Amino acid sequence: EDIKKGDLVLEKGTCIEPQHIAVMASVGCNEPLVSKQPKIGIISTGDELVEPFEYPAQSQIRNSNAYQLIAQVQRAGGTPNYMGIAEDSEEVTFSTISKALEENDIVLLTGGVSMGDFDFVPDIMAKAGVDIKFRSMAVQPGKPTLFGTFDQHKFIFGLPGNPVSSYTQFELLVRPLMLKLMGIRELPKPVKLPMGATYKRRKSVRKSFLPVMIREDGKVYPVEYHGSAHIHSYVFANGITSVDIGKETLEKGELVDVRPI
Amino acid sequence: EDIKKGDLVLEKGTCIEPQHIAVMASVGCNEPLVSKQPKIGIISTGDELVEPFEYPAQSQIRNSNAYQLIAQVQRAGGTPNYMGIAEDSEEVTFSTISKALEENDIVLLTGGVSMGDFDFVPDIMAKAGVDIKFRSMAVQPGKPTLFGTFDQHKFIFGLPGNPVSSYTQFELLVRPLMLKLMGIRELPKPVKLPMGATYKRRKSVRKSFLPVMIREDGKVYPVEYHGSAHIHSYVFANGITSVDIGKETLEKGELVDVRPI
Repeated sequence: EDIKKGDLVLEKGTCIEPQHIAVMASVGCNEPLVSKQPKIGIISTGDELVEPFEYPAQSQIRNSNAYQLIAQVQRAGGTPNYMGIAEDSEEVTFSTISKALEENDIVLLTGGVSMGDFDFVPDIMAKAGVDIKFRSMAVQPGKPTLFGTFDQHKFIFGLPGNPVSSYTQFELLVRPLMLKLMGIRELPKPVKLPMGATYKRRKSVRKSFLPVMIREDGKVYPVEYHGSAHIHSYVFANGITSVDIGKETLEKGELVDVRPI
Repeated sequence: EDIKKGDLVLEKGTCIEPQHIAVMASVGCNEPLVSKQPKIGIISTGDELVEPFEYPAQSQIRNSNAYQLIAQVQRAGGTPNYMGIAEDSEEVTFSTISKALEENDIVLLTGGVSMGDFDFVPDIMAKAGVDIKFRSMAVQPGKPTLFGTFDQHKFIFGLPGNPVSSYTQFELLVRPLMLKLMGIRELPKPVKLPMGATYKRRKSVRKSFLPVMIREDGKVYPVEYHGSAHIHSYVFANGITSVDIGKETLEKGELVDVRPI
């Protein structure tokens, strides 16, 4: 065959796909050294939440974020550890966050980090020993996104409470960190593709991340998207593209960066 | 929110991704009706094969195909059922194939369907009740690919003995069939992307499937590929493109069909 003794057949940090299994089998590599899958704690916050199997009273909504995050964590190769809905009290929030940081490599909180009455979560994180690196980002959706570290080697994200923002920030921030922790050498990079239709927005003070569809013609089309509460916009999306600060239009034919999802 | 009572939130036949989980959770759909995962029997044939954990004697090689197929089946959402290496005898081959057809929805045989001395497999399949639809295809790699049906609703493929051909034919034929059996509405379609470099081949009597790399510039580059035994060619590939019969060159800049893998 085409392999000689002493050849390097797979680089350290390769994400193992079926074709790599064939290469390993052909050289008798039956016990490869692999990375541990990171354990990801997921905490929902907000007294307005009920679980999907419960019937919401008026002013309540079903918790969809946590289950979306569980699926995103699994797809990215991690082990999800759902810790439930933490009630809006300082004591419960503190103990839940402390327990989560102890048990997991990364903790994801959804909700509780924007500026409402009960958004005391960042202060509680600080009390629990989290070194908060930032509390918001100039992006849309996902402005109220918090990131901190704990004990040098643990990480915590406060993700926005709505599913579109939470989905997007997971893909943009959490997934790359998970791959890094697993020692994967090459992180997925955006691909440059042409716009198949023109996209316009009115405000341009934040960098915007848009759900898009990559169609068979190899071009990128915006999907119907009514803002960050529009959970349906991602049903037909197979990519995310971005519009920079100060930019209002993506012209038809213009090359844009797209991350397949 | 944006959903009214009576709205259809997800089409029948949707392949469930994390964003669909959020939609289902938000409407309290906790027990969705899902398709059964097809069970895929995998049989290796060939007395020259040893398992990857064994040390091959001269004239023997390690079985890499079956383990690659197991990984491909899992990635495509099926349940692999590895039935071992069937020795090159008519009795054993007959009983292994019969058992596999009974236990599984699809059977994949690797090796044994080209024109060598011991390639009695198609005759045995016919004896076992398989209605053979074709025994070869005008494609490269993967010419000796067999396809048959059994008992109306079961399917059997004889895949080529080398890993590159086996990999390619699985992606082109077996995976779409699995998705159909699972009732998935939209099969993955190739995307049109421009060639980033010129590709030439000498013979053009068969349709050729090439491993390619889709780079960050959104263009398609051929990967080094020395023919169907060159198992390493797919290590760096993230797509498959095709060259039609009669066509010798893909010009730089030409739009080609690419299936991401």
